Amino acid sequence: MAEMFKTLASWLTTSGIKIIGILIALAILSQMSRWIAKWMEKIVYEKDPLQASEAKKRANTLGNILRHAFLIVLTFVAVLMILGELGIQLGPLLATAGIGALAVGFGAQSLVKDVISGFFIILENQYRIGDAIEVAGVSGLVESVSLRKTVLRDLQGKVHTIPNGEIKVVSNLSKEWSRSVLDLGINYGEDIGQIHELLVQIGKELESEEPFKTAILEPLQILGVEKFDESQIIIRMMVKTVPLKQWDVGRELRRRIKIRFDEKGIQLPYPHRVLLWGEPFSRINEK
Amino acid sequence: MAEMFKTLASWLTTSGIKIIGILIALAILSQMSRWIAKWMEKIVYEKDPLQASEAKKRANTLGNILRHAFLIVLTFVAVLMILGELGIQLGPLLATAGIGALAVGFGAQSLVKDVISGFFIILENQYRIGDAIEVAGVSGLVESVSLRKTVLRDLQGKVHTIPNGEIKVVSNLSKEWSRSVLDLGINYGEDIGQIHELLVQIGKELESEEPFKTAILEPLQILGVEKFDESQIIIRMMVKTVPLKQWDVGRELRRRIKIRFDEKGIQLPYPHRVLLWGEPFSRINEK
Amino acid sequence: MAEMFKTLASWLTTSGIKIIGILIALAILSQMSRWIAKWMEKIVYEKDPLQASEAKKRANTLGNILRHAFLIVLTFVAVLMILGELGIQLGPLLATAGIGALAVGFGAQSLVKDVISGFFIILENQYRIGDAIEVAGVSGLVESVSLRKTVLRDLQGKVHTIPNGEIKVVSNLSKEWSRSVLDLGINYGEDIGQIHELLVQIGKELESEEPFKTAILEPLQILGVEKFDESQIIIRMMVKTVPLKQWDVGRELRRRIKIRFDEKGIQLPYPHRVLLWGEPFSRINEK
Amino acid sequence: MAEMFKTLASWLTTSGIKIIGILIALAILSQMSRWIAKWMEKIVYEKDPLQASEAKKRANTLGNILRHAFLIVLTFVAVLMILGELGIQLGPLLATAGIGALAVGFGAQSLVKDVISGFFIILENQYRIGDAIEVAGVSGLVESVSLRKTVLRDLQGKVHTIPNGEIKVVSNLSKEWSRSVLDLGINYGEDIGQIHELLVQIGKELESEEPFKTAILEPLQILGVEKFDESQIIIRMMVKTVPLKQWDVGRELRRRIKIRFDEKGIQLPYPHRVLLWGEPFSRINEK
Amino acid sequence: MAEMFKTLASWLTTSGIKIIGILIALAILSQMSRWIAKWMEKIVYEKDPLQASEAKKRANTLGNILRHAFLIVLTFVAVLMILGELGIQLGPLLATAGIGALAVGFGAQSLVKDVISGFFIILENQYRIGDAIEVAGVSGLVESVSLRKTVLRDLQGKVHTIPNGEIKVVSNLSKEWSRSVLDLGINYGEDIGQIHELLVQIGKELESEEPFKTAILEPLQILGVEKFDESQIIIRMMVKTVPLKQWDVGRELRRRIKIRFDEKGIQLPYPHRVLLWGEPFSRINEK
Amino acid sequence: MAEMFKTLASWLTTSGIKIIGILIALAILSQMSRWIAKWMEKIVYEKDPLQASEAKKRANTLGNILRHAFLIVLTFVAVLMILGELGIQLGPLLATAGIGALAVGFGAQSLVKDVISGFFIILENQYRIGDAIEVAGVSGLVESVSLRKTVLRDLQGKVHTIPNGEIKVVSNLSKEWSRSVLDLGINYGEDIGQIHELLVQIGKELESEEPFKTAILEPLQILGVEKFDESQIIIRMMVKTVPLKQWDVGRELRRRIKIRFDEKGIQLPYPHRVLLWGEPFSRINEK
Amino acid sequence: MAEMFKTLASWLTTSGIKIIGILIALAILSQMSRWIAKWMEKIVYEKDPLQASEAKKRANTLGNILRHAFLIVLTFVAVLMILGELGIQLGPLLATAGIGALAVGFGAQSLVKDVISGFFIILENQYRIGDAIEVAGVSGLVESVSLRKTVLRDLQGKVHTIPNGEIKVVSNLSKEWSRSVLDLGINYGEDIGQIHELLVQIGKELESEEPFKTAILEPLQILGVEKFDESQIIIRMMVKTVPLKQWDVGRELRRRIKIRFDEKGIQLPYPHRVLLWGEPFSRINEK
Repeated sequence: MAEMFKTLASWLTTSGIKIIGILIALAILSQMSRWIAKWMEKIVYEKDPLQASEAKKRANTLGNILRHAFLIVLTFVAVLMILGELGIQLGPLLATAGIGALAVGFGAQSLVKDVISGFFIILENQYRIGDAIEVAGVSGLVESVSLRKTVLRDLQGKVHTIPNGEIKVVSNLSKEWSRSVLDLGINYGEDIGQIHELLVQIGKELESEEPFKTAILEPLQILGVEKFDESQIIIRMMVKTVPLKQWDVGRELRRRIKIRFDEKGIQLPYPHRVLLWGEPFSRINEK
Repeated sequence: MAEMFKTLASWLTTSGIKIIGILIALAILSQMSRWIAKWMEKIVYEKDPLQASEAKKRANTLGNILRHAFLIVLTFVAVLMILGELGIQLGPLLATAGIGALAVGFGAQSLVKDVISGFFIILENQYRIGDAIEVAGVSGLVESVSLRKTVLRDLQGKVHTIPNGEIKVVSNLSKEWSRSVLDLGINYGEDIGQIHELLVQIGKELESEEPFKTAILEPLQILGVEKFDESQIIIRMMVKTVPLKQWDVGRELRRRIKIRFDEKGIQLPYPHRVLLWGEPFSRINEK
Repeated sequence: MAEMFKTLASWLTTSGIKIIGILIALAILSQMSRWIAKWMEKIVYEKDPLQASEAKKRANTLGNILRHAFLIVLTFVAVLMILGELGIQLGPLLATAGIGALAVGFGAQSLVKDVISGFFIILENQYRIGDAIEVAGVSGLVESVSLRKTVLRDLQGKVHTIPNGEIKVVSNLSKEWSRSVLDLGINYGEDIGQIHELLVQIGKELESEEPFKTAILEPLQILGVEKFDESQIIIRMMVKTVPLKQWDVGRELRRRIKIRFDEKGIQLPYPHRVLLWGEPFSRINEK
Repeated sequence: MAEMFKTLASWLTTSGIKIIGILIALAILSQMSRWIAKWMEKIVYEKDPLQASEAKKRANTLGNILRHAFLIVLTFVAVLMILGELGIQLGPLLATAGIGALAVGFGAQSLVKDVISGFFIILENQYRIGDAIEVAGVSGLVESVSLRKTVLRDLQGKVHTIPNGEIKVVSNLSKEWSRSVLDLGINYGEDIGQIHELLVQIGKELESEEPFKTAILEPLQILGVEKFDESQIIIRMMVKTVPLKQWDVGRELRRRIKIRFDEKGIQLPYPHRVLLWGEPFSRINEK
Repeated sequence: MAEMFKTLASWLTTSGIKIIGILIALAILSQMSRWIAKWMEKIVYEKDPLQASEAKKRANTLGNILRHAFLIVLTFVAVLMILGELGIQLGPLLATAGIGALAVGFGAQSLVKDVISGFFIILENQYRIGDAIEVAGVSGLVESVSLRKTVLRDLQGKVHTIPNGEIKVVSNLSKEWSRSVLDLGINYGEDIGQIHELLVQIGKELESEEPFKTAILEPLQILGVEKFDESQIIIRMMVKTVPLKQWDVGRELRRRIKIRFDEKGIQLPYPHRVLLWGEPFSRINEK
Repeated sequence: MAEMFKTLASWLTTSGIKIIGILIALAILSQMSRWIAKWMEKIVYEKDPLQASEAKKRANTLGNILRHAFLIVLTFVAVLMILGELGIQLGPLLATAGIGALAVGFGAQSLVKDVISGFFIILENQYRIGDAIEVAGVSGLVESVSLRKTVLRDLQGKVHTIPNGEIKVVSNLSKEWSRSVLDLGINYGEDIGQIHELLVQIGKELESEEPFKTAILEPLQILGVEKFDESQIIIRMMVKTVPLKQWDVGRELRRRIKIRFDEKGIQLPYPHRVLLWGEPFSRINEK
Repeated sequence: MAEMFKTLASWLTTSGIKIIGILIALAILSQMSRWIAKWMEKIVYEKDPLQASEAKKRANTLGNILRHAFLIVLTFVAVLMILGELGIQLGPLLATAGIGALAVGFGAQSLVKDVISGFFIILENQYRIGDAIEVAGVSGLVESVSLRKTVLRDLQGKVHTIPNGEIKVVSNLSKEWSRSVLDLGINYGEDIGQIHELLVQIGKELESEEPFKTAILEPLQILGVEKFDESQIIIRMMVKTVPLKQWDVGRELRRRIKIRFDEKGIQLPYPHRVLLWGEPFSRINEK
C-alpha cells in the first residue's frame, strides 16, 4: 500500500508536474496566437486608418473563426499529450491524424495563400477602396479589401468576389494619375498636317472648359502615325487626367472630334475594297 | 502460478487502465467531432435562417456520412492502439496504412477544398438562393448552396452542379442593385446631339411607366461616344435597376429606341464598304 | 536444453500470442473492409433501386478487384509483422516499400478521386441513366453511372467513357424540365409589334396541337429585343418543355415560323452592306 | 577462444537464423509478385481471348522488365537488411536512398498511371482492336492496346502511340452501332415541305440498295429545322448504321442529294449579301 | 593502458569490421549500378543495332556523368556512415541534407522522366532515325534518339531538341506505309459522275508511270462527297504510298488534276456571293 | 531532502546548462539571420547604388516583418526545447505543428519563389528603373524593383504590380539599344526598285535632322521583300536607335513615308477583290 | 572533484573527439563542394573554350553565392551537431527547420531545374552564342548561355532573358545549314509548266551571283503544287543555305520573282469572288 502511495507520489512529482507544465505552455501558445493576430491587425490598420472600423469587424470575424479552430486543435493536442504522459502508445493515433492532416493541409493551403497574398496587398498598398483595378481576369472599382478576399463592382453592376490567392498581377488604373489613349483612324487621302492642327485645337478647347479643365493634368499629346492599317492611318494621341477621369475625358474628346470633323467635312474611314473585273464565271465554265 | 497471476495483475493495472483510457479518449474525440459539426452548422444557419430547414437536411446527410467514416477510422485506430498496448510491432501496418493514406489523402483533398470554399461562401454571404451569378465558366440563378456544392439553373433550363472548390472568382449580378449597359451603334452621318436628346426623352418615358417605374432606381445615364467603330459610332448608356430587372429594362429600352428611331427615320447602321475600281483583271493578265 | 525449451516457451507465450493476435486483427480488418464496401453499396442502391441489378454486378467486379488487391497487401503486411516479431530489422524493407508506395500512391490517386467523385454523383443524384448531360467537354445521354466512371452516348452515336474524377461542373439538361431558347433575327425594316403578334399566334397554335401539347409545360414567352446585330434585330423567345423535348419543340417552332413568315412575306435577314463609290483606283494611281 | 566460439554460436542462432529468414521472405515476395502479374494477365486475357497471343508476348516483355527491376531492388534490400543484422548503422544510406527515391518516384508515377489506366481500359472493355476512337486529341482505328499504351492509326496513315495515362475521356465511335448526322443547308426561298419529301424519298432508295441495305440499321430520320443560319436554313437528318459504316453511308447520302437536287433544280445555298447604295464616297469628302 | 588497448581492440573487432563491411557493400552497390547501366544499354542496342556505335558514345557520355555523380554521393554516404560508426549524432546533418534533397529531387524528377520515357520509346520502337514524326507540337525527320532526348529536323531546316519527358503522344507518319489524303473542292454546278471518272483516270495514269509506280502501294481510292462547303463540294480521295512518299505523290496528283481540269475546261471553285439589291441607303435616311 | 537537493543540483548541472545552451544557440541563430539579411542587402545595393535609399527603406520593411516572424518562431522553438528538457513528450505537439506547417509551407512557397526570383533579377541586372520591359503578359516602364515584386506603368497609365515569382521570360526593350522594325505594304503594281530608292532617301533625311540625328544609331536598313501578302507586297525595313526612342523614330518614319508617297502619287494598298460574274441566282433557281 | 575531472576527461575523450571529427568532416564536405563545382565548370569549359573567359566570370559569381549559402548552412549544421553532442534535445528545432525547408525547398526547386537544364544544354551543345533559336515562345540570336539562364536578342532589339528551366523544346535555326521555304501563290489561270521553268531560271541566276553564290548550298528545289487555295494555287519551293542566310536568300528570291513576273506579265493572285444576282431585296419584301 505504502509502495503504491509512494509510486503515486513519485508519479505526481514527475508526470503530474509535466501535465501542469503542458497546460501552462498551451496557455502561453494561446496567448502568443493572440499577439500575432494583434500584430498583423496593427500593421493593417496603420496602413489604412480610414478602413479601420469596417476592416476591424471583418478581421475580428475571421480572427474569431481561426482562433476557435486553433483552440479546438490545442485541446486535441493537450488530450494527446496528457495521454502520452499517462504512458499510452500514440503511434497509431498520430499516424491516422497525419492521414487526415495530409488532406486538410492540401485543402487549406489555398486559404493560407489568400491570407499571405492579402497581407502584402494591404501592406504594399497595391490598391485601396475606390480604386479601379484589373485582377484575375475581372475589373471594376474596389468595394472592399480584406486579408482573405477583394470585392470589386464593375460597370455592369456585377459584384466580383476574388480570393486574394487568385490575384497574381495587379493592374491599378487609378494610381496618382490616369491616361486616356485614343487611336484615331483617318482616311489615307487626308492631310496629316491639317488633322494634327485640328486635333491640337480641339485639345486646347477641351483643356480650357470646365469640368475638363480640372480633370486634365497635362495637355493633349499627339504622338503621331502609329500604324498603316488596311483602310486607314492610325493617329495616336493621349491625355493625362486626374485618376478615374480618363473615360469621361476620352468620351468628350471623341465627341468633339466627331463634331469638328463634320464641320470640316472630314470623313472617318470605312473599310475600302479595290475591285477588279475578271471574265464572267459562266463563260469560263463554257470554255 | 502466483507469479503469472501477479504479472497479469500488474498488466491490468498498467496496460488495462491504458486501454480503458484509450476508449474514453476516443469517446471524447467522437464527441468533439460532433461539437465541431454543430458549431459549423450554427454559423451556417445564423447566416441564413430561411435556408435552414432545407440546408439542415442536406448538412445532416453529409454530416452523417462524414461521421460514419470518422467512426470507422476511430475503430481502426482503437484496434491498432490496443494491439500496440498488447505489445505487437505496428511498424509495417502503419507504413502500409501510410501508403494507402497517401493515395486517399491526395484524392480526398478536393473534397476538403470544397468544404472550406463552401464555408466561406456561406459565411461571407457571397451569394444566396435566387441570386444570378457567374462562377467557374457557367452562369444562372442559384438553386441551392451547401458546404460541398452550388446548384445553378441557367436560362436554357440547364442545371449546373459546381463543387465549391472549383469556384474561384464569384461574380454576383444581383447584389443590392443591377445595371443594364447598352452600347448603341449609330451611323457616322447622324447628329450626335439630336440622338442624345432622343435617348434622354426615351429614358424619361420609360421611367414614368409601370412596371419599369419601380424597376428603375436611377434615371438613364448617357455616357457618350465610347468608340469609333468600323462603320458606326458607339454611344454607351446605362440604367440602374432593381436586382435581376436589368434584362427586362434593357430589352424594353431597345424596343423603344427601335420604334422611336423608325418614327424619326434614323437608320441603325449596316457595315459599309468604299469601293474603288481597278483595271479589269483579265486585261492586266493580257499585258 | 531445458533453458532452450524454457526460452522457446517464453517466446511462445509472448511473440507466439502476438502472432496469433496479428492474424486475428487482420481477419477483423478484412471483415471491416467488407462492411465499408457493403455500406457504400447500400447508399448507392437506396438512391437508385432501378439501377441496382446492373450496378450491383459492376460494383461487385470493382469490389472484387479492390478486395483482392487489399488481400495481397494484407498478406504482405502480415508477413512483415511476423518477421518483425521474429526480431528481424525491417527498416530497409519499409524504406524500399515506401519508395514504391510513393510512385504507386501518386499513380493511384486519380483512381481514388474517381471513386470519391462518383460517390457524390450518385449520392446527390446529380444525374441518372437517361439524362442528357454536359460534362468534361462532352455531352450526351447517360448510358451508365458507376463509382469509377460515367458512360454517355451523343447524337452521333459516339460512346464517351469519362472517369468520374475528370468531372468538375455537371450540366444536366433534363432535370424536372427543359427549355428551348430561340434567338430569331429579323430585318431592321420590320415592324416589331407585328412580328410579336405573329409569334404569339404561332406559339398558341403549337401548344394546342399534339404531340406538342403534352410536351410544352408553359406557353411560349417572348422576351423581346435581345440585341441590335450587324444586319438584324435579335428577338429572344423561350418555351418550357418536358425534359428532353426542348429540341423537338424548338425545331417545330422554327419550321412554323419559316412557313408563316413565307405566307406573310416576311424575309429572314441576310447580311447587309452599304456601298459607297470612291474614285477608280487606277486613276488615283495616275495622279 | 571458447567465448568467441560461444558468441559466434549465439550470433548464428539469432542473426544467422534471421538472415536465412530474410532470404526466405524475399523468395516468398518474389513469388507473390509473379502471382500478381499472373492474376492481372488472367483478367486481361479473359476479357479478350482473341488478342491473347499478341498481348501475351507484349505483356511478357513488360513483365520481364518490371520483374528484373524488382529483382535488382530486392537484392539491394537484402544486402541492406543483412548489413543491418550485422549491426551497421543504415541511417545515412536509407536517407540517401530516400533522396534518390523521391526523384525516381516522381518520375515513375506516370508509368504507374499508365498501367492503372490501361488496366481499366482493358477490364471495362472501353475499346478493342479495330474500334474507331478519339482520345487525347487524336483519333483513328485501334491497332493495339497494352497495359502501358494504345496505338491508333488515322486516315492519313499516321500511327499515334498514346501512353494510357494520357487518356482521360475515351470517345468510341464504333460501339454496337454508329450514326451519320448530316446538317444540310438550303436556301431561305425553298419550300421546307417539298425538301422534306425529297429527302425521305432519297432515304428510302438508299435503304433498298446494296451495300447500304445491310449497313443501315434504322431508316433515315429527318429531325427538322435545326437553325436559321446567315444565308441558309439548316435541316438536320441522321441515319443509324453498322459500326464504322457511318462515313460511307454519309457520303453516299450526300452524293444522292446533290444529284436529285440538280434534277429538281434545287440550288444549294451560297452566302448572300444585301447591297444598299450610299452616296459616292468622294462626294461626301467634298462636302 | 591495457584497458585502453583492450577497448581499441574491442572497437576494432566491432566497428572496425563494420567500417570494412561498409566499404565492401559500397563497392558491391557501385558494381550493381554498372550492371544496371549495362543491362539497359544491352536492351537499347539489341533493339537497334544500326544506331549502336553512335548511341554507344552518347550513352557512355550520359552514363559517365551519372556514374560520377553517383560516386560522389556514395563517398558522401560512406563518410556519413563511418562518422555514424564513430558514434557521432547525424540527425542534424541528415535533416539538412533532406532539405537540399527536396529541392534537388523535385528539380531532377524531369531528368528521371526523360530517361523512363526514352527507355520506352526505344524499347517499343515507337520511332527510329529517319522516321517522320510529330511530337510535343513540333514535327520533322528524326535525326537521333537517346535515353534523354530526341532530335528532329523539319522542312525549314530547324533542329528541334525535345527532352523525351515532354513527349506524350507520338505520331509517326512513316510506319510501314503512309497515305496521301486529298480534299478536292469542285463547283456546285459540276457533274459529280464525270469528275469521278476523270479522277479515276488520272489515278491510273499516275500508277503506271515511274517513279510513282513504285511509290504507290494501293491504287487511288475516291471516297466520295465529304462535305457541302460554302461555295464548293469537297470530294475526298486517298492513295497509299511507301513511307515518306505521301507528299511527292500528293503534289504530283494535284499537278495532274490541275492540268487535266484545264484541258476539260473544269474550273476550280472561287468563293461565291449572291447579291440582292436593297433600296439606296441615302434614300432610306431621307425617309 | 538531501537527495532531492542533490537531484536538483544534478538536474541543474545537466539540463540547466543545456537550457542556457539553448538560449545562447538561439541568440547566435538570431544574429546569423541578421547577417544573411545584411549580406543579401549588400549584394542588392552594390548592384544598383542609385536605388539604394528607396530600396533600403522597402527592404527594411520586408526585413522587419520577416525578422519579427522569425523571432516568434524562435520563441516557439525555445519554449518547446525547454519543455523537452523538462522531460515532456512533445510528439503530439510536433505532429500537430507539422500539420499546420504543411499548409503554411505550401502557402508560403510562392513568397519564397518571389524572393529567389527577385534576387536573380537584381543580381543579373535583368532590368532596372526606367527600362521598358514585357513580363508575365504585361508591359511598361519599370517604376520600381524589390526582392518581392516589380512595378510597371504602361502607356495607358495602368500600374502593374507583378510578384517576381510570376516572372518567367523577361523581355527588355531598352538594353543598350532599341530597334524600330517597319513592315510597309505596297501595291503589287509598284516598282520595287523605285520604292527602295525613295525609302533610302527618306532614311537619309531623317538621320540628318534633329532630334532624330542623335536618336538614330545606325542608318535605315531596307531588308527587302518580306512577304507576298493577299493584296500587297510587304517591304521590311529597320533602324537602330537609342533605347526607348524606337517608337518616336518609327512614327516619324511613317509620317514622312506617307507625305513623300502622297507627293509621288504612290498609293498605300487597300484590299483587292477580283470579281467574276456568274449567272443570276434567281434564273438558276428557275431551271 | 576528482570524479568531476574524470567525467570531464571521459567526456573529452568521447564527445570532444567527436566534435573535432564533426569539424574535420565539414571541412571535407566543404572541399567536396568545391570539387563538384570545379568538375561541372571543367565540363562546361571543355565544351566551349571560346566562351570560357566570360562564362568563367559568371560561373564564379553564381558559384560564390551558392558557396556562401552552403557555408551558412554548414555552420548552422555544425552548431546543431555540437549542441547534439552536448546532449540537448534537437527534435523541436529540426521540426521547425523542416517547416522552413518545405517552403524554401519548393521555392528553390525551379533554381535547381534551371541548373540541370542548363547543364544539359551546354553539355549536349544544343545551341551556342550566335545561333538563332526559338525557345519558350520567344526567338532571337543567342547572346549568352549560362547554367541558370539563356539571353536572346530578337530582330526588334528586345533582349529576352529565359531561365533554362523554362526551356522545353529547343528549335535551332542555324545548325550546320538553314533552309528558306517559299510558298508562292499563283492564279488558277496560269500554266504551271511555264511558271516552273521561270522559277528554275530565277533559281539558276540567283546561284550564279555573289553574295548568294556562297550563301546557297544546294540549288533551288521546286517541290510542286502544295495546295489548292481559295483563290490561288500554292507552289512550294525551297533552297538550302549557309546558317542564318535563309532570310536574305528568301527575300532576294521574292524580289527577283516579283520583277521577272512583272516582265512576263504574270499577275500575283488577289482574292476572287464569283457574284450571282438574286432578286432585288426590297421586291422580295413586297411580295
